[in-house]
Amino acid sequence: MKTSLRLSGEQSQEFIMHNIIIHEVGMRDGLQMEKQVVPLEKKIEWIERLIESGVDIIQVGSFVRADKVPQMADTDKLFNHLLQQKPAKTILSVLVLNEKGLERALECGVEMICMGVSASETHSRKNTGMSVADATRRIIEMAKLAEASEKRVQVSVQSAFGCGYEGHVPQERVMRIVEQYLEAGLRNISLADTAGHATPEQVEKMFGAILEFGENIEAACHFHNTYGLALANCYAAMKVGVTSFESSVAGLGGCPFTKIAGGNTCTEDLVHMVQRMGLREEIDLHMLIATANDTSQFFGRELPGMLYRVGALEVV
Amino acid sequence: MKTSLRLSGEQSQEFIMHNIIIHEVGMRDGLQMEKQVVPLEKKIEWIERLIESGVDIIQVGSFVRADKVPQMADTDKLFNHLLQQKPAKTILSVLVLNEKGLERALECGVEMICMGVSASETHSRKNTGMSVADATRRIIEMAKLAEASEKRVQVSVQSAFGCGYEGHVPQERVMRIVEQYLEAGLRNISLADTAGHATPEQVEKMFGAILEFGENIEAACHFHNTYGLALANCYAAMKVGVTSFESSVAGLGGCPFTKIAGGNTCTEDLVHMVQRMGLREEIDLHMLIATANDTSQFFGRELPGMLYRVGALEVV
Repeated sequence: MKTSLRLSGEQSQEFIMHNIIIHEVGMRDGLQMEKQVVPLEKKIEWIERLIESGVDIIQVGSFVRADKVPQMADTDKLFNHLLQQKPAKTILSVLVLNEKGLERALECGVEMICMGVSASETHSRKNTGMSVADATRRIIEMAKLAEASEKRVQVSVQSAFGCGYEGHVPQERVMRIVEQYLEAGLRNISLADTAGHATPEQVEKMFGAILEFGENIEAACHFHNTYGLALANCYAAMKVGVTSFESSVAGLGGCPFTKIAGGNTCTEDLVHMVQRMGLREEIDLHMLIATANDTSQFFGRELPGMLYRVGALEVV
Repeated sequence: MKTSLRLSGEQSQEFIMHNIIIHEVGMRDGLQMEKQVVPLEKKIEWIERLIESGVDIIQVGSFVRADKVPQMADTDKLFNHLLQQKPAKTILSVLVLNEKGLERALECGVEMICMGVSASETHSRKNTGMSVADATRRIIEMAKLAEASEKRVQVSVQSAFGCGYEGHVPQERVMRIVEQYLEAGLRNISLADTAGHATPEQVEKMFGAILEFGENIEAACHFHNTYGLALANCYAAMKVGVTSFESSVAGLGGCPFTKIAGGNTCTEDLVHMVQRMGLREEIDLHMLIATANDTSQFFGRELPGMLYRVGALEVV
C-alpha cells in the first residue's frame, strides 16, 4: 500500500546535518550468514540494482577462504565483472581479514578496503587467534600497505558497544584502538556493534568522544537491529556527526551471537529516514525496495526490513 | 539466549533525562486490532502481570459499542475486578470516544481517562463524523467534565505526524489543537502517530514547540513501528522532554492504514532502552518478556517485539 506524504520546509530547516554516506554491506555481511549460496549471476543482478539506486559504497564481498565461507568464494570474479562497468561515483569495497586477503584485494583492483579488530579480547582471540593489541598492530600494518597502494581504507572496531561473549566493553578499550588508528594516520574509522548491544545514548557518547579527537575524521557506524535499536542508533550517530552508515538491503544478516534474525540496519529503512530529513533524496528508494523484495523472494522468507513490506511513503 | 552486560557509570552520567512514565496500551490499542476475542480471564492474567512488572499506567480497554468492537465489550467488568486489588501506585486508564463512554468510565471508577481528536480533517470525519474544530470543542467539554469528577485526564492529537488518508499534516494544525487544550487548562497532552509516519527529527520539532508553550505540560507520545522508527522516535522525544510513553506489550497492535503488523512501540523493547540509560531499573523486564511470550502463544503467531524473541541482556 502506498500513501502520500508531502514534506514541508518546516521539516528540513533548522536541522544541521552533515551529508550522509550509505555503505551497503548486505552482499557481504548479509549473505555470509545465509546457508543458501547465491549464484554469481544473482549477486551481479542485485549489485547492479544497488549501484543504480545511487547508494555511495557497495561492499561486494570478502576475501576469505572459500572452504570456510563458500558464499564469498566468487568475490574476485564479482570484482572482475563489476569494476569494468560501474559508474565512477559508486565505490566498491571489500572486507579483508588478513594479509592473504589484502593481497587478493590489491590484485583485483578493489577501490576501498575495510578491515578491523575487535575491542573484546575473547572475540578477538576466537576470530583471529590474537590478542587485541597484536591484532591492532597487524591491522594497522595492513592498512598502511593498502594506503601505500592508493586505496581508500576503512578501519573498524568490532564489538565496540558490547560483546556477545564478554558483555560490557568499556569505552576506554575502544578509544585505545581508535587512538592507535589515528596515530597511524588512518582517518576513516568505523565502530561496529557486532552483538547488537548499542543504545543511542552510548552511540552519542562513543562517537562524540571520537569526533573530539580532531578534524578530518570520517566516522562510520555499523549496527545490528537485535534489540530493535538500529535506526535509533543511526539517528543518534547522525546527530553527533557520524557521516557513513553501513546497512544491508532488506536488513539481510544478523547478529552472530543469537539465532534471531534481527538483521543489520536495513538500507531502505535507513534511506527512508534520511530522505524524510530532506537528505539524499536522489537515492532511488523504490529500487532499493524492489531489490529487498527480490532478496526476500530468493531466500523464500520474510527478512527483517520494514519498508519493503509496507511500501514507501510517497513524498509529493 | 541470555548474554551478560554490565552498565558502567560512563553510560548514565552526563545524560540529563526526566523520569520516564510507561503507559501500557496493548490491552486496548493492541487487542482492538485482533479478531480473536481474548477471554476476560486471560485479559485479567495479562493485566495482573503487567501491574506486577511495575509499569506506571495500564490502559485496560475502551468504552465503545460492544457490537462495533467486541474485543472491548468487557471493559466495565475488567475495571470492576481490577480496581479492587491493584496496588495504589499503578494507574488504570481507559479510552473514551464520546459522552456515553465518558459516562460509563465515571460510573465504574476509572482513575485516568484518555480522549482525543485527529489533526486530519478526513480522519476526524471518518472516525467521528465531525470536523476537527467541532471534535476539539466536544473533547474539551468532555475533558473538563472528567476533571470536574477529579479524574486524571489525558487529551491527545491523533494523526499528529501524518495521516493515512491525507499524507502530510502541517505542524500548525497540531499546534492549534494543543493551544486549545492548554487554554482549557488541560496539561497532559499526548501526540499519537496514528499512521506511523513520524520521524525522529519531526518528533523533536513538534514536541520541542509544544514544550516551549509553558511549564507543567506533561507531554506523552504514542508511536507505531510501521517504518521501523518507533524507538528512534521515543529516543528523540525523551531528549526534548517528553515524559510519558505509550507502548504495547510484544508490540501488539498496528497501524490502521496498512495490513502490515508494524505494531505499536513495543513495551519491553522500550523498557530495555530506558533501562540501558540507567532509568526505571525497577521495572521487571523479565515479567514483561514473559507476558509478551504468552500473548504471542495465545495468538499463535510472531508479534512485532524484538526482545521477547531474543531474550533480555542481563545487566550485571
